[in-house]
Amino acid sequence: MTDANTLHTLRTTSPLVHCITNYVAMQFSANTLLAAGASPAMVHATEEAAEFTPICGALSINIGTLSTPWLDAMRASARAANAQDLPWVLDPVAHFISAYRRDACAELVALKPAIIKGNASEIMALNGTQSAGRGVDSGDSVKDAKHAARMLANQTGAIVMVTGEVDHVTDGTQCADISGGSHWMPRVTAMGCSLGSLTAAYAAITTPFDAAVSAAAHFAAAGDWAQSRAAGPGSFHAAFLDGLALIGDDQLAPWVTRG
Amino acid sequence: MTDANTLHTLRTTSPLVHCITNYVAMQFSANTLLAAGASPAMVHATEEAAEFTPICGALSINIGTLSTPWLDAMRASARAANAQDLPWVLDPVAHFISAYRRDACAELVALKPAIIKGNASEIMALNGTQSAGRGVDSGDSVKDAKHAARMLANQTGAIVMVTGEVDHVTDGTQCADISGGSHWMPRVTAMGCSLGSLTAAYAAITTPFDAAVSAAAHFAAAGDWAQSRAAGPGSFHAAFLDGLALIGDDQLAPWVTRG
Amino acid sequence: MTDANTLHTLRTTSPLVHCITNYVAMQFSANTLLAAGASPAMVHATEEAAEFTPICGALSINIGTLSTPWLDAMRASARAANAQDLPWVLDPVAHFISAYRRDACAELVALKPAIIKGNASEIMALNGTQSAGRGVDSGDSVKDAKHAARMLANQTGAIVMVTGEVDHVTDGTQCADISGGSHWMPRVTAMGCSLGSLTAAYAAITTPFDAAVSAAAHFAAAGDWAQSRAAGPGSFHAAFLDGLALIGDDQLAPWVTRG
Repeated sequence: MTDANTLHTLRTTSPLVHCITNYVAMQFSANTLLAAGASPAMVHATEEAAEFTPICGALSINIGTLSTPWLDAMRASARAANAQDLPWVLDPVAHFISAYRRDACAELVALKPAIIKGNASEIMALNGTQSAGRGVDSGDSVKDAKHAARMLANQTGAIVMVTGEVDHVTDGTQCADISGGSHWMPRVTAMGCSLGSLTAAYAAITTPFDAAVSAAAHFAAAGDWAQSRAAGPGSFHAAFLDGLALIGDDQLAPWVTRG
Repeated sequence: MTDANTLHTLRTTSPLVHCITNYVAMQFSANTLLAAGASPAMVHATEEAAEFTPICGALSINIGTLSTPWLDAMRASARAANAQDLPWVLDPVAHFISAYRRDACAELVALKPAIIKGNASEIMALNGTQSAGRGVDSGDSVKDAKHAARMLANQTGAIVMVTGEVDHVTDGTQCADISGGSHWMPRVTAMGCSLGSLTAAYAAITTPFDAAVSAAAHFAAAGDWAQSRAAGPGSFHAAFLDGLALIGDDQLAPWVTRG
Repeated sequence: MTDANTLHTLRTTSPLVHCITNYVAMQFSANTLLAAGASPAMVHATEEAAEFTPICGALSINIGTLSTPWLDAMRASARAANAQDLPWVLDPVAHFISAYRRDACAELVALKPAIIKGNASEIMALNGTQSAGRGVDSGDSVKDAKHAARMLANQTGAIVMVTGEVDHVTDGTQCADISGGSHWMPRVTAMGCSLGSLTAAYAAITTPFDAAVSAAAHFAAAGDWAQSRAAGPGSFHAAFLDGLALIGDDQLAPWVTRG
């Protein structure tokens, strides 16, 4: 599917996305999906999460504010997704900050996400490469993480997406780079988390590789749109959501270089 | 009380509203109440929720991201509200997506909310009517839900409020329709949830029926105000909060048709 | 350090701040820190919170939506901060609304925060002075709370910061008043909570007293900047974040009167 087709399909089919994400990102992720054209649902209770997953088009799991009951729901929903061949995205936020998070992340990776999305430090640490991550911010460049991303894709069978100034997507063989965006993006919280959820939305309608590329391109295009309309991070936040909704179906492709 | 009076009274008395709501809607609901002129308080721990409720003017319960400890607090606060004859609003978000949520919702309805607010699919499913709900979005029209709303009002004794392009409020006999708003509203998360909390704020100062009508009209007027000032869902979000604060006391009535 | 120096240092060193805060304030607090130039991390699970604290520059604890597992993490992280001589800020949100919250707050105060920040009613109630607090809003003026603030500083050894139309900072002997801001600030949720987190960010780079003064002055300057660009509370919210990022390094001092 071409990138123009994916955005058009997203808007016309409005896939329902099950998000089990962190408290900080919830509102912005929901607004990102709605602005982009998809339909978000945040459901995390163990009593119902796995019952809900199969009626969705995809699942997005983000460990940003992990705790035990949420991890239970993540596991159950990931299994429910796998049982139905539904794609799911793992965002291993800051998985290197504690033994607890590292173990949880390893367990989730073993449950076979279709796509793993992280910043350079997260992807490098996940692959076992030495990284300079600090808190939730990356201390490494996407360029440095490309090798780790390829290896991680080969190790896990997942599409790996490294986010940064230029985003990089790889299946271990083919890859794509997505430029664009805005220098305000790192100054707005939950941008990366929301991209993970939008990636899941695209995964409901196309292949995991094309989903990662389309979501990154949608962010790049909306970020570029908003950059020229924003004075700072607050007005950028609002303009970015406008851009997600207003860019044309044909405005994803210019930001993508397939390699 | 006329609709102009309710808005004026809300702004001058600033009722304190106890909100037990979902994680996605918390910030926007608090900002909605503050912009409208009320005072929000989010308190959900079972150790204190029921102790806090009686000092408030009304209670708003929303099951959007339900879990066991929160349900305990909802029950306890609903009982505390009833013991003091404080009105409380139930928003049965997506109650049809799991057995867990259905049971929780049935239990809360049995605790006699003064107002039940939902989208068409939620109200129809609550009444036992076949619905086309999917996730948190309605698959049915408000028009289709009017009969179910009237029956639900008669079954429960609650005012029933169905939200959509045109909102409908009924006590089982008299009813009102509220038009207005903006096509961007369904593209901003937690709009419906925030309306539930604002309805509770109005219920602190007027009858449940007039509270539902006034809150819907306040949203309609602010949505209309923002529609002409917004480029997309992000700028609409900001302009909507501006509108809640800036519309005149006399700007609710034009959106209401009582039947 | 002069106030110009603190803002410049914040922006150039971007201190990592561990925030254990309430659900309503999380997104806005993270955006406040990012806009101001610091780096937020929300980590609350007892399994990892205390392991994470020592890699940060400071800790911010806010009891706005307190619950048992979160209180456990707050205690553990406060102890971890103390063990490393990391400064931490306590925001005792509405601690007077329940026995549960009062007890939790007393326990946290005993763990020796470097800075206690609250509105007038919160500070007065913490000191044992009769107050008129209601929910999360102050029913008292900052002026009325100055005596209580000085006593509380002397009792606890903490810098005490009272927020309101004019903010007041005292160490029990010397004090400072910070004017500025905007009448829209009380109409946007989590402004006070976010100020607590920004205060922690400054505490990572300067003395607790200067941190409280700088954070309050940064808010005053950004609020003033945004006031002239905002139509209402929604547009103010966005413009305020812009202002935090855009004001010059030398724009804190004019708002501060040291006494």
